[in-house]
This record gives sequence, C-alpha cells and structure tokens, in this order.
Amino acid sequence: MAGDRAGDYRILHEGALRDYLAGVPDLKSRLGGEPAAWSITEVGDGNLNLVFIVKGARGGIAVKQALPYVRLVGESWPLPLSRAHFEYLALSRQAQLAPGLVPALLHHNETLALTVMELLEPHIIMRKGLVAGSQYPGFVGDITTFMARTLFFTSDLALSAAEKKDGIAGFAGNHALCKITEDLIFTDPYRIAEQNRWTAPYLDGLAAGLRDDMELHVAISRLKLKFMASPEALLHGDLHTGSIMVTESEMRVIDPEFAFYGPMGFDVGAVLANLLMAYFASAGHERAPGDRRAFEGWVLETVEQVWNEFARKFLELWRANATGDAYPVSLFAGEKGAIRLEAERQAYMQRLFTDTVGFAAAKTIRRIFGLAHNIDFELIEDPRKRAVSEARAVRLARGMMVEAVAFRTIADVAGAARKLRDWRPELSG
Amino acid sequence: MAGDRAGDYRILHEGALRDYLAGVPDLKSRLGGEPAAWSITEVGDGNLNLVFIVKGARGGIAVKQALPYVRLVGESWPLPLSRAHFEYLALSRQAQLAPGLVPALLHHNETLALTVMELLEPHIIMRKGLVAGSQYPGFVGDITTFMARTLFFTSDLALSAAEKKDGIAGFAGNHALCKITEDLIFTDPYRIAEQNRWTAPYLDGLAAGLRDDMELHVAISRLKLKFMASPEALLHGDLHTGSIMVTESEMRVIDPEFAFYGPMGFDVGAVLANLLMAYFASAGHERAPGDRRAFEGWVLETVEQVWNEFARKFLELWRANATGDAYPVSLFAGEKGAIRLEAERQAYMQRLFTDTVGFAAAKTIRRIFGLAHNIDFELIEDPRKRAVSEARAVRLARGMMVEAVAFRTIADVAGAARKLRDWRPELSG
Repeated sequence: MAGDRAGDYRILHEGALRDYLAGVPDLKSRLGGEPAAWSITEVGDGNLNLVFIVKGARGGIAVKQALPYVRLVGESWPLPLSRAHFEYLALSRQAQLAPGLVPALLHHNETLALTVMELLEPHIIMRKGLVAGSQYPGFVGDITTFMARTLFFTSDLALSAAEKKDGIAGFAGNHALCKITEDLIFTDPYRIAEQNRWTAPYLDGLAAGLRDDMELHVAISRLKLKFMASPEALLHGDLHTGSIMVTESEMRVIDPEFAFYGPMGFDVGAVLANLLMAYFASAGHERAPGDRRAFEGWVLETVEQVWNEFARKFLELWRANATGDAYPVSLFAGEKGAIRLEAERQAYMQRLFTDTVGFAAAKTIRRIFGLAHNIDFELIEDPRKRAVSEARAVRLARGMMVEAVAFRTIADVAGAARKLRDWRPELSG
Repeated sequence: MAGDRAGDYRILHEGALRDYLAGVPDLKSRLGGEPAAWSITEVGDGNLNLVFIVKGARGGIAVKQALPYVRLVGESWPLPLSRAHFEYLALSRQAQLAPGLVPALLHHNETLALTVMELLEPHIIMRKGLVAGSQYPGFVGDITTFMARTLFFTSDLALSAAEKKDGIAGFAGNHALCKITEDLIFTDPYRIAEQNRWTAPYLDGLAAGLRDDMELHVAISRLKLKFMASPEALLHGDLHTGSIMVTESEMRVIDPEFAFYGPMGFDVGAVLANLLMAYFASAGHERAPGDRRAFEGWVLETVEQVWNEFARKFLELWRANATGDAYPVSLFAGEKGAIRLEAERQAYMQRLFTDTVGFAAAKTIRRIFGLAHNIDFELIEDPRKRAVSEARAVRLARGMMVEAVAFRTIADVAGAARKLRDWRPELSG
C-alpha cells in the first residue's frame, strides 16, 4: 500500500489512469497483458467519486478516486480529499474485523486519494436487486456478522478507553462527511432548504406538515445530537442498500467514506430503513396486483431477522470478549453478578434498539424529502403511485421517530409496516 | 508562552528552578530584585506534581511542574508528562471563557512540563475553609459562572460539529489521566483493590456491602460508560473543593490536568458531591453540639443554589448563543417553535440533572472507600465519629446512584441530606 507516493493530486481520467496502473507492478500483473489493451470504464453512480472498472487479460480491479468536490453537485460544493484516507482506514479495519465481507484492498495512494480494490463480479448493488424483486437468503447472516463485529470490536465493550480515544481522534478529521449527514439527514428535510425535493404535488401537504411538526423537530434534534456526540463505535456511516453488493450467496459492504465514531443505531437503523423502503416501494413496482407479495414477505422477515440476528451475535461477542473498560467483569463476579450483568446486557440492547428505531426513521424521511433519493421509490414511474408508497413509509417513520420507545421489539416495527401495506394516504394536488 | 524550548525534560528543584526563572525576562522582572534573594517554597499537597511558590522583591508566582510519575505513589506508577500540555490547553480555554475565574497564565514550557501562573494570595484551598466552617457567599455566583460558561461554550449547543470534533481530538491524548478516574472512581471502590481503604473496622460491613451490591455495580458501570463515551463538553475533570481557591470575595478554579471532553454532569456533580461531603463531615468537626449548624445550613443552601444558578445561567447562554449545530434554531421558528424548544431545553437540563446526581454519588463513594480520601472526613480525629459521617454520606450516595431519576430537583437532594444529618448508622467492629 503506497501511501506516500510523490506528486500532487490530479484527477486520473482514462489515459492517466492506465499509465498509473501500469506503473504499479502488483496491479499490472494482476490485470495481465498489455496495458494498452486494458478496458477502462467509468461506472461511478454514487454522488461523490470517480469509480473505474479496469479489466486486463488476466483479471479485473475497481479503482475509486475522490474528487475535490461533490460529484452530484459539482465544483460549487467542495469536499476534502481526505475522505479517501478515512475510507481506506475504515476499510482496513473492517477487513480485519469482518474478513470476507468487504472488498479486498489492493492499493492505496494517499496523495491521489485513490484506492484500488478487488473487482466484485458478478455482484450487483443490492438496491437494484431489491427493486427487481430479488431475494437474498444469505444477506441476514452476512450483514449481521458485519455489523455485530465491526460495532462490537470498536466499542468500549471490547476496547480500552485509551484505544477507543485513539480511534475517535483518528476519525475526528472526517467532519466534512459527517456534516453532509448532519445537514441532509438531520436538518434540511424539516425546514425549507433549496436542495429538498419530493414527489410534488402529491406530497406537498406532507412536506409542509413535517416542517410544522415540532414534536418531530425535537425528536430529530435529539437524534442529531446523538449522531454528533455519542462515539460508541466505528460506524460505516452510510450503510444503505446502495453500499452493499450482493450475489445470490455473497455480500460485500463498500464505500465507508462516511466512517467515524458514532452511535451504533445509526448503522443498524440504516439497514432496516432501506429494507423498509424497499418494502413500501414494492407495491409501486407491481406488474400485476400482488405479484410481489412473496418478495414483500421476505423483506419484512428480513427486517425482523436483521435486528434479531444482529442482537444475538452482538450479545454473543460481548459474553465471550468483554475485554473493554466498560462493564468490567470484575464488578460482576459470581452467579449473582453474572445474572445481573446479563440483564444489563439485555437492557443495553433495548436502548440500542430504541436508537435504531429513531435513526431508521431519520434515514427514511431524508430519502423522501431531502436531496438524495433512492431508486426504490424513484423508479416507480407513476408519480401518484410513488407518492402513495412514500406516504406509507413516512407515516411509519414519523411514529418511529416520535415514539421510538413504543416499539418494543422489531416485530412491532414489521407489524406496523405490514398494517400500512394497503393504507390509502390523502395526497395533495 | 515558550512551548518549544530546547533541551530534555528534567526535574527543576530549587536551584535549577531559580536559574530557569532568572532566564525568563518577564518572570524575572515580575519577581524583581536579585534571583539569589528569591524565596522558593515547595507547597504541592496534591497527589501528582511539584508546586513551588516563588517570591521576589516585587511579587510572587506559582510554578507547577509535572513529574513523570504519580507523586502520591512514586516512580512505580508512571504518568505521562503530557498532562501538563493538556492542563495548559484547558487553562487557556477556561481563561477565555471564564475570565478572572482561573489563575492568570504567565509562562509555559512544554518540554519541562512546567507552567507558571499568578500567585493566588491570600486565597486558600476551599476545602480547608469548609473544614474550618467558613462560609463563602460569593462562591455560588463564581462557580456557576465558571461551569455554565466553560461547559456551554464547548458543547454542541455553541460549537459547530467540526469545531467540537477538533476539540475532542485535541484532548484525546489525555487518556492516562482519564484512566485514573475510570479506575479510582468508577471501578475500584466496588471491588477488592489493593489501594482501597476506609475507616476500619467501622465501615467494614458497608464496604463489603458495596462490593456485593449488583444494582450499584450496574449504576456505576453506566456512569463509567457515560464518562468514557459522552464527550458533551470540555470538562475540568477534577472539580472538587481541593481544586478551588477562595478568599471571602474571590474564587479561582485551578489544576485542570484531568481535562477532556466528557459528560457535563461529571463536573457539576463533583462540586455538589464535595459540598455534600463537607455537610456530612461537619458534625464530626463540632467542638460543641450544634456549633456548626449555621455553617451546615449555608452548605445545603449552597448545594441548592449551585445547581439552580448553574441551570439558570446555562439556559440563559443557550437562549442567547445557540450558535452550535445541535438544536438548530431554524427548526424551531415561530412562536410554536420557540415554546417547544424552550420545553426541550428544560428537558435537556432535567437529563443533565439526573447525570449530575449520579456522578455526585460516584464522587462521594470514591472518597470513602477508594484510594484518595479528603480532609473533610480525614480530619475528624475520632474514627467512630468519622465513620458515622461517612456512612451518612454513603447512604445518600447509594440512593442517588441507583435511583438518580427519583431526585427530581436539587431540593430533593438537599432534603434527603438534611434528613440524614442525625441518622445513626449501624457500624461494624
């Protein structure tokens, strides 16, 4: 991993990228054949970076380079290249903690803000599969292992306070990426903001209602404060179904450039929110009434299993690896201590569940009223149908945010979603 | 402030200190006269450092030098010199935020871990005054200004998330000092630990009870986790009455070497706990029955006023300076928004009060069963009397820690203390 290559940052478009890769022996050999014959395709469909797939006679690689601005918006919205450093740092840590569940790192150049990873083939972005109605039976096992291990092992339950503080300091510089989240998820959807958009005119009334809903504003503000000032563990920070690549049997989590030490519920909530949105969007993708019921059943079952399996694995790790400074085992000696500590572990998970419910709601609302939408809803062509799906998701999310503690179990969440499957919202326009 | 003076660390005993100070023109001139005539007295009665008072023909200064180990214990317990850096950093910040309430900084040498401050005369350590039964009418005003301003202006309510993260990272390296707190306050008093001590044999039963009290162990573990992972604001970190110097009309907070970003309730709770201990210790210092009743009344009144005035000032700062990224004013526009935000501010203070109650309890118990005791109790010569005072404090603290939310107002705390004034505990031995 060359982190200190000389030369200033420059954007590597196709020709320059070819020359660069040809100059890195490991990569050249992995690609194979003559550099001139390598195919180079820009495939970045995210909002921030350049992403190239490069294929040679022997194999392929993926190359990601950060741009000094937000790609979706342009040079008017600058964004520091340092995010490539934090992404590389996070990916390295995740690879240690959850081997096989993130792409293999092949090369990193700090100056160029460039990272080369294994090419994931034939993996697709999970969100695309969900829009198509595909089911991923292995997903629950993999995503819950990823979350349980990356969150537990970077928490105070596993680390000494000194290690934890070093970790927090190491990611403190990634605040420009955190600010995107703070603004776009925790603030803008609840006020008039130029970049907001929604399915107009149908959701105009709902959008105005959110801006006027002071209970919701208190709830989102509490979540925002928790996001900013609760460094519980190293988060992926953007763990939606567009950051997950899948095949029928495999899963990889990609793109951790939003990584920082934050509240665990933000990552877990992101996964649940994106499954719930896939569920509500599904009705809009029907070609015949009810033709996606099996898919929808699988999605809601997956929602339940994601939390339950995550909690089970997290608790199992805690029981077996209580090496951190929090909840020292020496304070819970003997049978009485063991029983009391186990009860406290359950209470800890309940608090984490409440956080998760709130963050899932925040992740949902931003996709319907904020800047960045997702194709689950966007690919519903009929805007009225799209608005109906979105309004159902918003109704659930509003309840989850304002009364998070009323959802005692994940079955409560899934049950509430199921009840809204055929609810007819009143639309504007 | 010379921060980059050449040369390695060395301990400056009297002669070397005289030469060093003579070489710093500002200090030499402030002291006045011939260096050979300066009086140099080592007065450090704390646990960690060397402290010298130096007086010359014109004036005096205080010199504090960190030792590479814990002074109280010796070289077998090393402690990084970097704490002098963090103390200097914190003192500088406190001086900006609470001018006149910390000693003026005159000189700092990073390499020597040495800081020179104004000589506080005729100030005495507040704890000594409390043991003597002195009242400090100006204390409430000064300490609440100090806490409200240093905590508010370093919190997410006043700072951008980026500024806050920079601050957290800047103090993350002070983890060796945090660990002292984590061990000595949040862990050791609740388990068998070599350094624990208490007024034996009278408190033997109580000590054993604490070690067996699993509800208390859960409560202290939750507080410990909050201490480690809730960077709400820049704390003093050791804000007991031994870190406060007073005259009848003035107050200065000294010794912020434990400074780090932590939960605000830890600082506020420290002040309250030390007042409560002064209250319970008072009976042990009577020369005639009831001769300290006026003092005791003043102390409990001060307990109430410290919280109430702190809360009032903190809220006033929040209303006038909501420049931080938390609770953005744009989400609380109009009259309805203003009313809802004010209610949320009150709820925020209630949560902070609950934290404060818990931390105050933790600070009390450590002084009675842990390594570091305080003279409020220690100077009670009759060990049985001392044990009675201590047992009363422990009874209140146990309730405050396990049922913190049951104390809705500071009057509840003061009232509970008042009820225990003449309670006769069952003692061992």
